[in-house]
Amino acid sequence: MDILESVDAYWRAANYLSVGQIYLMGNPLLTEPLRPEHIKPRLLGHWGTTPGLNFCFAHLNRVIRERDQEMIYIAGPGHGGPAAVAHAWLEGTYSEVYPEVTQDRAGMARLFRQFSFPGGIPSHVAPETPGSIHEGGELGYALTHAYGAALDNPRLVVACIVGDGEAETGPLAASWHSNKFLDPSGDGVVLPILHLNGYKIANPTVLARIPEEELIKLMEGYGYRPRIVAGDKPEVMHRLMAETLDEVFDEIAAYKDGRQSRLPMIVLRTPKGWTGPHEVDGVQVEGTWRAHQVPLTGVRDDAGHRAMLEEWMRSYRPQELFDETGEPVHEIRQTVPEGARRMSASPHANGGELLRPLTLPDFRDHAVQLTSPASALTEPTRVLGRFLRDVVAANPRGFRLMGPDETASNRLGAVFEVTDRAWNAEILPTDEHLAPGGRVMEVLSEHLCQGWLEGYLLTGRHGLFNCYEAFIHIIDAMFNQHAKWLEASRRIPWRRPVASLNYLLSSHVWRQDHNGFSHQDPGFLDVVVNKKAEVVRVYLPPDANTLLSVADHCLRSRDYVNVVVAGKQPVHDLFTMQEAVIHCTRGLGIIEWAGNDEGQEPDVVLACAGDVPTLEILAAADLLRRHLPELRVRVVNVVDLMRLLPESEHPHGLPDAEYDALFTTDKPVIFNFHGYPWLIHRLTYRRTGHDNLHVRGYKEEGTTTTPFDMAMLNDIDRFHLVMDVIDRVPGLGAKCTHLRQRMSDARVHARAYTREHGEDAPEIRDWTWPRGEGTEVPVTGDIRPL
Amino acid sequence: MDILESVDAYWRAANYLSVGQIYLMGNPLLTEPLRPEHIKPRLLGHWGTTPGLNFCFAHLNRVIRERDQEMIYIAGPGHGGPAAVAHAWLEGTYSEVYPEVTQDRAGMARLFRQFSFPGGIPSHVAPETPGSIHEGGELGYALTHAYGAALDNPRLVVACIVGDGEAETGPLAASWHSNKFLDPSGDGVVLPILHLNGYKIANPTVLARIPEEELIKLMEGYGYRPRIVAGDKPEVMHRLMAETLDEVFDEIAAYKDGRQSRLPMIVLRTPKGWTGPHEVDGVQVEGTWRAHQVPLTGVRDDAGHRAMLEEWMRSYRPQELFDETGEPVHEIRQTVPEGARRMSASPHANGGELLRPLTLPDFRDHAVQLTSPASALTEPTRVLGRFLRDVVAANPRGFRLMGPDETASNRLGAVFEVTDRAWNAEILPTDEHLAPGGRVMEVLSEHLCQGWLEGYLLTGRHGLFNCYEAFIHIIDAMFNQHAKWLEASRRIPWRRPVASLNYLLSSHVWRQDHNGFSHQDPGFLDVVVNKKAEVVRVYLPPDANTLLSVADHCLRSRDYVNVVVAGKQPVHDLFTMQEAVIHCTRGLGIIEWAGNDEGQEPDVVLACAGDVPTLEILAAADLLRRHLPELRVRVVNVVDLMRLLPESEHPHGLPDAEYDALFTTDKPVIFNFHGYPWLIHRLTYRRTGHDNLHVRGYKEEGTTTTPFDMAMLNDIDRFHLVMDVIDRVPGLGAKCTHLRQRMSDARVHARAYTREHGEDAPEIRDWTWPRGEGTEVPVTGDIRPL
Repeated sequence: MDILESVDAYWRAANYLSVGQIYLMGNPLLTEPLRPEHIKPRLLGHWGTTPGLNFCFAHLNRVIRERDQEMIYIAGPGHGGPAAVAHAWLEGTYSEVYPEVTQDRAGMARLFRQFSFPGGIPSHVAPETPGSIHEGGELGYALTHAYGAALDNPRLVVACIVGDGEAETGPLAASWHSNKFLDPSGDGVVLPILHLNGYKIANPTVLARIPEEELIKLMEGYGYRPRIVAGDKPEVMHRLMAETLDEVFDEIAAYKDGRQSRLPMIVLRTPKGWTGPHEVDGVQVEGTWRAHQVPLTGVRDDAGHRAMLEEWMRSYRPQELFDETGEPVHEIRQTVPEGARRMSASPHANGGELLRPLTLPDFRDHAVQLTSPASALTEPTRVLGRFLRDVVAANPRGFRLMGPDETASNRLGAVFEVTDRAWNAEILPTDEHLAPGGRVMEVLSEHLCQGWLEGYLLTGRHGLFNCYEAFIHIIDAMFNQHAKWLEASRRIPWRRPVASLNYLLSSHVWRQDHNGFSHQDPGFLDVVVNKKAEVVRVYLPPDANTLLSVADHCLRSRDYVNVVVAGKQPVHDLFTMQEAVIHCTRGLGIIEWAGNDEGQEPDVVLACAGDVPTLEILAAADLLRRHLPELRVRVVNVVDLMRLLPESEHPHGLPDAEYDALFTTDKPVIFNFHGYPWLIHRLTYRRTGHDNLHVRGYKEEGTTTTPFDMAMLNDIDRFHLVMDVIDRVPGLGAKCTHLRQRMSDARVHARAYTREHGEDAPEIRDWTWPRGEGTEVPVTGDIRPL
Repeated sequence: MDILESVDAYWRAANYLSVGQIYLMGNPLLTEPLRPEHIKPRLLGHWGTTPGLNFCFAHLNRVIRERDQEMIYIAGPGHGGPAAVAHAWLEGTYSEVYPEVTQDRAGMARLFRQFSFPGGIPSHVAPETPGSIHEGGELGYALTHAYGAALDNPRLVVACIVGDGEAETGPLAASWHSNKFLDPSGDGVVLPILHLNGYKIANPTVLARIPEEELIKLMEGYGYRPRIVAGDKPEVMHRLMAETLDEVFDEIAAYKDGRQSRLPMIVLRTPKGWTGPHEVDGVQVEGTWRAHQVPLTGVRDDAGHRAMLEEWMRSYRPQELFDETGEPVHEIRQTVPEGARRMSASPHANGGELLRPLTLPDFRDHAVQLTSPASALTEPTRVLGRFLRDVVAANPRGFRLMGPDETASNRLGAVFEVTDRAWNAEILPTDEHLAPGGRVMEVLSEHLCQGWLEGYLLTGRHGLFNCYEAFIHIIDAMFNQHAKWLEASRRIPWRRPVASLNYLLSSHVWRQDHNGFSHQDPGFLDVVVNKKAEVVRVYLPPDANTLLSVADHCLRSRDYVNVVVAGKQPVHDLFTMQEAVIHCTRGLGIIEWAGNDEGQEPDVVLACAGDVPTLEILAAADLLRRHLPELRVRVVNVVDLMRLLPESEHPHGLPDAEYDALFTTDKPVIFNFHGYPWLIHRLTYRRTGHDNLHVRGYKEEGTTTTPFDMAMLNDIDRFHLVMDVIDRVPGLGAKCTHLRQRMSDARVHARAYTREHGEDAPEIRDWTWPRGEGTEVPVTGDIRPL
């Protein structure tokens, strides 16, 4: 039999299985006429895109077999979930990972019933779907995921179906340019297949309705060599697609050999809902938006529609596709690639299978030496940069840094001692640190950074995304989807753990005094903590040594999203390396040298999380010890924010007894927080002492000003903290009216100085912890792993 | 004098003023040699993009004068804030809105000093900047803002400078296609000027480093007619730019006349930091990324650098530009357009000046009639659609609906009875409701919807953005920036109030059972409430009539962001129209017919916010009244979420006494919430009864299943609520072991039924409030405006 006839048979089988999943809960092989009870009561699924997805998959399988090509498949229109499931079942993968769904009649019945059915599987491509690294829900990220997967996989081709709906999104529109960041020799190749079926939910799509000449220019403008495959006659289309793919893969080989600098892409133009009912109740469905979801509705009750469904399904000639037992016939099985060559079984699509731990140099080698705490200043991210440099050097292939052009700005520039920025466009003599294959990926698109990294991690590699804190909100939605992917995949036994997604948020709210209000937003943490406790971690290391310790931990972790907030501006060195490790391991603890409670119950607890809030708490403690030496002050620093949650709510949650021992149950706690203050309340509202908790944080006040003025605008400054203590500690208010006034005056003075001189007063800028005191940092509480 | 010489003089003046703002706090006219005390202590600002911004502005002013062209200017690289300020000062606008900054030497000194100075103005283009509707912080939105401004402004040209850094972002990449949504006769025109200065912060840019042939194809592929203006010799560039602009505006006229279907755009290629120091300390600065911010550093202390600064500033020949008093010379002043033609003074850029209230038909005309509460079902958004249809009909120009292809899916389809979807690409016979000038803008890009609407609102019009709830996170960052814009502009006296940005979040978390986990995320509310109380409002109307009342209120409001969460699936009609108005006006209240406390202190309060949580609370109240008739139950519904905040924290905040009267101070409150449960704690933690508050909500459990199974997965279902009551009301636990077990069994049964039948059990699906009870809804508490 002609190979294209086999491809057609495979395609028909996939289409048949797709329709069956959407409609049937019985009679899978149509061995009897369809009856109402064979039809699902709720018809959920998306037919419109599915035949096109199946068409591509069928044809790519031929290429894989003929060229022994390593390939994975990313379905941008992943709401066509039945397609991906059909292929995994036809390729045998589905029965391997879900043994109860056998490759026979009973298994087919189960396959159909479970789709979009309570207790079954999701309607979209999801972590549950073998062969996928790409959730089919929110649109926009198919192509950036594809490029992330291709990085450092020189033999891999990532076939990426881009729906013409998705193509209207911003992230997808930007993703086309990812080809400028690909290294022809060190990276794999992405083959975009822009699938123009003409419509989204209820509308035509832009790219389907511009002149073809414009579309070709657009793709050429993006740096591709486009080829058009258009039509609706299957036999013509099979030949055209096969010829085109042969040419395309020859071109890919030429690109890999350096004989061609541009990569090919395909524009596939087929009717929406191709091969489905052309007209229903007198209205055209195939080739219109009406085919988007379920083209025939009410099939259970409407005998006419039911007959149409049966006719439609029989049009694929199932008796030629499956034998009496329900198994795909030999002709179909022989079109399927073998073992790990099957796109549904590629280890790249279950990245944990390929994951190797990073080779991690000892972060302690980069420790900042302390003579006394809070007496000298260091830029934490600059120190981290040196550690990351060594990580890059020790892991020449499986580790990348992503960032929107801010690696140097965030002071991680040391990495450029050992690597470059990935760049495969023109390079001028004045440029620095640009090269194909560089380990640093910089593009002014947080979406691309996030998407590349997700694709890279889900295919079994490691990385870190450094970003200005305010602008990480740009990828809130992508974070949500990745966290959901991790939440779901943790419950799927065959999905192996992948490296965590690590964020380093620098250039944070408190030191965006120079860029102004638009750059001041610490709210990403609020988005993060809404996701399931098992997958989210938030760290606020207050100095360079704690940042090193936290970074090392994050790079070793799996299946989490780690958010690390750390400044690039100089901050006081607080902890020796040994102390830092202990402090980070505990996640929070008392800074004994800063307080004077000396193991006794304090009168007030000054708590802090974040570098600038910690500085102000220390300066406030200093003021209190000078002016109110009889007041017993305890200073508590929190590195691991999740420790504030109850033990029942998060794996890191601190037992109530330990929380009470640190924060007391009845003493005022003034908590100076990096982010919006309500987050601390949200984490601690179940704690006994919560009513005594008074949180300061960012309350959405800011502009272009000085760092200390930013603190004052939001009342997190040392002077206001002392006022808070006076106001909150019972009996102090009346006794300390003079001190309170002095603090208030100090604020007025600080602001006046700033407005006159354009910078903070030296006594504020240059504050250090009084010398001569001890440097040890005993921390209370048991040590437990982060 | 030749007109181009005047343009050059104006350009030099703007450059001089820009450099002065970045560096000087004294000696503005360089009447004496620069001394250290003339230099600001902190040098903050972005020079790199500024000369290009100034160049465009100067040339566009010539066009405005010669053609009497109505124009506004959007500076994508708005971090070049000194440019916009310089123009506003040169045009006289700055002194009009800030009279203390006079157009003379003293004013110039003030202008210089205030820039990026504590107590002064932000370093980026900001609401404080006259003539701008576009914040220069987060990048990506210039072009979509420009298109939003052009809609329904047929005589307006929006000149939009797109930086080549910004051009790498997703939202900007998608924005080019906005031209397919523009109506040549009813809308204005956007003139994109892609400013390739070659670098972002530390990297070359993609579009500057692809072959020019590719760049041209890209722009043609986007549907524009590109023209290149490239070079670094001012005299050559002036001629080239002037000729190009003459051609371009002729083409715009041809487009407006229908003689040409494609709009022009300009690629402007100039060195980064053009006319600034070419080389500093032996390293090239002009034409490289090193010119991005402050090209000369340490100028206060470094006499050599200071001399270079002086030489640089004198290179603009200030003595030719400003007279002895500091006023711009006549030659420059005559290049400036007059009155409202000045781009810095355009009323379009201070949209409140042009704002006319919507003509609002009576929403009560669409009221759903009730016979008894919770006995019949209505799709709230379908009812709203009819009201919106009438709003569209009554406001043929100044009102638009935006949405990512979901207007029909969200059941607002009635609007298509009176209008179409805006569409200016190919239209096929099978299409429906597509036309240039349609009031509905649908594109599968939440970024474009948001950006268009922002541009539309900030230029004085009205609109509503309808979106799937989960995917509104895509524009979290844009929301943040718009909220910040509103926060800042409310404090600026000359900025007039603009219409609120209204979100309708439908297809929400509880009814995304069919699309699965990726579509389930109610966390946008958490992002919203972080912004300042003055600008954010959140409404959760539980039925159609309350939705109508809320929508009417939102469409009348100014300077807010209103978030309305309302389902498209049928929900029970709870309130008559009259009751709905009272309930929405109060924002929350007791549903008396659902409880049995009859004015007495209840044993338990069942509170709810959101349609599905309210349904489950009512069903739980029904169960309790049947099975525990002696238990005094009060049902409280919250429409206006901000009422839960203390009075001190939000203008809508409920006084403590009223809160206590509703929720009691010591009785258990079971709160069934639409979103993540912690949000309710974050709003109420200061309330006396907070320790007794037990919140149910979305806890990140979901998949493709049935609606009631979604409720059960997250424990917001009626049965679990009854169990919660039993567990929380003192003494009930021991008495009700049997009832508790029955509830638990009911959950097991409901899940089993669902898994067998693929849908919810009829007794759950078809639940209604027992008939025969009264329909009146007395609500306690004083009426106060929303």
